[in-house]
Amino acid sequence: MNDNTRSGTGNNLDPWYGNYAARAAGLAASEVRALFAVASRPEVVSLAGGMPFVSGLPQDLVIDAMNRVMSNQGAAALQYGSGQGVPALREQILDVMALEGIKAGVDDVVVTTGSQHALELVSKLFLDPGDVVLSEGPSYVTAVVIFKSYQAEIEHVPMDEHGLIPEALREHINGLKRAGKRIKFLYTIPTFHNPAGVTLSWERRVEILEICRSEGILVLEDNPYGLLYFEEKPPAAIRSLETDGVIYLGTFSKTLAPGFRVGWALAPHAIREKLILANEAAVLSPSSFSQMIISQYLDTADWKGQIDTFRGIYKERKETMLSALTEYLPDLTWTNPNGGFYVWLTLPDYLDSKQMLPRAVTELVAYTPGTAFFADGQGRNNIRLSFCYPTPEQIKLGIRRLTSVINAERDLLESFSATGPLTAIRRDDNYTAPPPNTN
Amino acid sequence: MNDNTRSGTGNNLDPWYGNYAARAAGLAASEVRALFAVASRPEVVSLAGGMPFVSGLPQDLVIDAMNRVMSNQGAAALQYGSGQGVPALREQILDVMALEGIKAGVDDVVVTTGSQHALELVSKLFLDPGDVVLSEGPSYVTAVVIFKSYQAEIEHVPMDEHGLIPEALREHINGLKRAGKRIKFLYTIPTFHNPAGVTLSWERRVEILEICRSEGILVLEDNPYGLLYFEEKPPAAIRSLETDGVIYLGTFSKTLAPGFRVGWALAPHAIREKLILANEAAVLSPSSFSQMIISQYLDTADWKGQIDTFRGIYKERKETMLSALTEYLPDLTWTNPNGGFYVWLTLPDYLDSKQMLPRAVTELVAYTPGTAFFADGQGRNNIRLSFCYPTPEQIKLGIRRLTSVINAERDLLESFSATGPLTAIRRDDNYTAPPPNTN
Repeated sequence: MNDNTRSGTGNNLDPWYGNYAARAAGLAASEVRALFAVASRPEVVSLAGGMPFVSGLPQDLVIDAMNRVMSNQGAAALQYGSGQGVPALREQILDVMALEGIKAGVDDVVVTTGSQHALELVSKLFLDPGDVVLSEGPSYVTAVVIFKSYQAEIEHVPMDEHGLIPEALREHINGLKRAGKRIKFLYTIPTFHNPAGVTLSWERRVEILEICRSEGILVLEDNPYGLLYFEEKPPAAIRSLETDGVIYLGTFSKTLAPGFRVGWALAPHAIREKLILANEAAVLSPSSFSQMIISQYLDTADWKGQIDTFRGIYKERKETMLSALTEYLPDLTWTNPNGGFYVWLTLPDYLDSKQMLPRAVTELVAYTPGTAFFADGQGRNNIRLSFCYPTPEQIKLGIRRLTSVINAERDLLESFSATGPLTAIRRDDNYTAPPPNTN
Repeated sequence: MNDNTRSGTGNNLDPWYGNYAARAAGLAASEVRALFAVASRPEVVSLAGGMPFVSGLPQDLVIDAMNRVMSNQGAAALQYGSGQGVPALREQILDVMALEGIKAGVDDVVVTTGSQHALELVSKLFLDPGDVVLSEGPSYVTAVVIFKSYQAEIEHVPMDEHGLIPEALREHINGLKRAGKRIKFLYTIPTFHNPAGVTLSWERRVEILEICRSEGILVLEDNPYGLLYFEEKPPAAIRSLETDGVIYLGTFSKTLAPGFRVGWALAPHAIREKLILANEAAVLSPSSFSQMIISQYLDTADWKGQIDTFRGIYKERKETMLSALTEYLPDLTWTNPNGGFYVWLTLPDYLDSKQMLPRAVTELVAYTPGTAFFADGQGRNNIRLSFCYPTPEQIKLGIRRLTSVINAERDLLESFSATGPLTAIRRDDNYTAPPPNTN
């Protein structure tokens, strides 16, 4: 065994304890992960995961696409493909992105194994140990996991109900520059943010892009939910404003189905080439089989109509969730998303959502504690509630169960507070105010 | 733009030139990659790629499996799954590995996006910059690309007709230890080696494992071809001898179809857990859709019979290739594989297979030059010939075309040699003798 103990991973029962790369220390199990096992028990109402409601997709559409692919192009579907992705699908991806104001060339699209893998590849290409990634606070759990796995530091910039705050972004950049830090990119989910549920306004898109341009900071725009709006269409993508300074990530996981594992990156020309090489090194080529079925589906099914169907389903579920919150927890605050999958709930600041979770699971409701979405321990009194997968009836039941858990915690702490003020239980100094309730 | 120019990647036309991670410098286009474009023209006989002959698989078997999955478990197939892979498939993978003498528990199998991705994940987990990976020389192209992309040094250990030479392995390890190098693992393809076509004997498997055990070196056993033998079954996998010191990689790409992108790692228990976390960070979960179709196929189709069919197809192709080599290029040497996809051809040492390639493509035959399989410039007078994809007729035609290219090069150099001895054109000092012709 090599005699190296510097990577804090592994333990004495692991004979390879001393052999892991330093970066492996950053790969810890996320709080969301542990929940998946719990939440999959049928009696638990899970408001935790981000699973789309795939039963809203008529399976005949998939079966038809599969059968057509196999009878017309079976050998190609079963074979290795291009490391950049199937050309016909890349053309169709341009049509999908056009719905969000993006004009691009087919050469700059790189198909990946879900947009998650695009995130991984971009991180592998850009992040040296100690580099800084700017991101909203809170941010997408598994993005934070990836950035840490490449030993980057995550700098959270606060949001309000209009999304990332430009002035705060400027301040953070200046502070990092003064500290001699090397900022590699801004990772942002501008539309129907996961987990915060807010959308970056058009004016701020322009302003944030200007800040990044003038500071030479690449923008990594992650947009899984943009087509799943409930009322008005959201503002066009940041990528619609800028070609060379933005890597845009898209996916079929939310508008079609995640089981195919097909997403994409639209990258500046020079970066695109390296992204393909990284993709080939990682998986040789994304699945031809999955890509060709999706291509066939886009070619022959009413995919825009199907997205409308999903919009209707998720709109109803969001409304159900917000009605239940208004009915049961009227004194708390939460965001009112105009699309996507998530509501961000703020508890009284003396409650700890992670500590409360085991009790919630006992009461047969699951959620994701807010700390999972920060790299630095923030979010202790926040909860992400997902309305994408459970039915409206389950959502109502879940919020009712959650309410009894929260109220029980409050009662418990109030009886303790007889011996001291509640304000003694407080956040630490770098606490950032959560986005206010906009409902 | 950040002002960093240390990573030798990008160029002045790339506005992000200075921003790449140091590791991105290791991601260069492989020689095989450029060939894929050329070799896909229908008039070219490609002896270059490693594409299996998927037309040898009755498509009804796939269509039946798809339809059964969609009618019985459609919603699960379209959804996210476990980061470790579908449990039913992991059970079946145990049956596949049992054919090569491996006993294992279902908990230690991690399904990946092709075994390529398992290689990537293991490399991400273990390789710090400057670490050494031992591998056969030559070795699998895209393994070398991955190791370089994590800034590892690849140390090639020579082979002969019985595979990796234990005494040479000992010497390399001792030399590296003297030089203060940190060896992370031995990457080996013991059975039907890509590209060399040789198989590690049983005695050497035992001996090499002993060496690695005593030196505390992890073994990464890559076995895509083991079930595709032509005569006798090859020796059992190295993993059959050892549980804690071997990560074993398998795939359905060669025995079923690569278009699904489903492979796996069987890892020591402690490593397995980290591999799942790395898999989740990279792709959330491997494709449920692909995994469930394969699981259904294994459940209901005669998959062992199908492997027998493939064995017959590839055996005929190998025999055709060797007959053609014997007929047209009797003075050269080549390996005689008992399975897999590849023959390793050795040219006279004054020929350069990479320089010769454009002429070969002009003559409508493609191959992979030997230098692609080394990290250090070796292999200049070697060629990898693939017999997996072209029909026997194409193979015969391809070898005939290759012969005329080789003979023209020889004639050309012989006419030049009037002004000096041919031996003036020679390898550099660290040249390793290629495996001798064993036919």
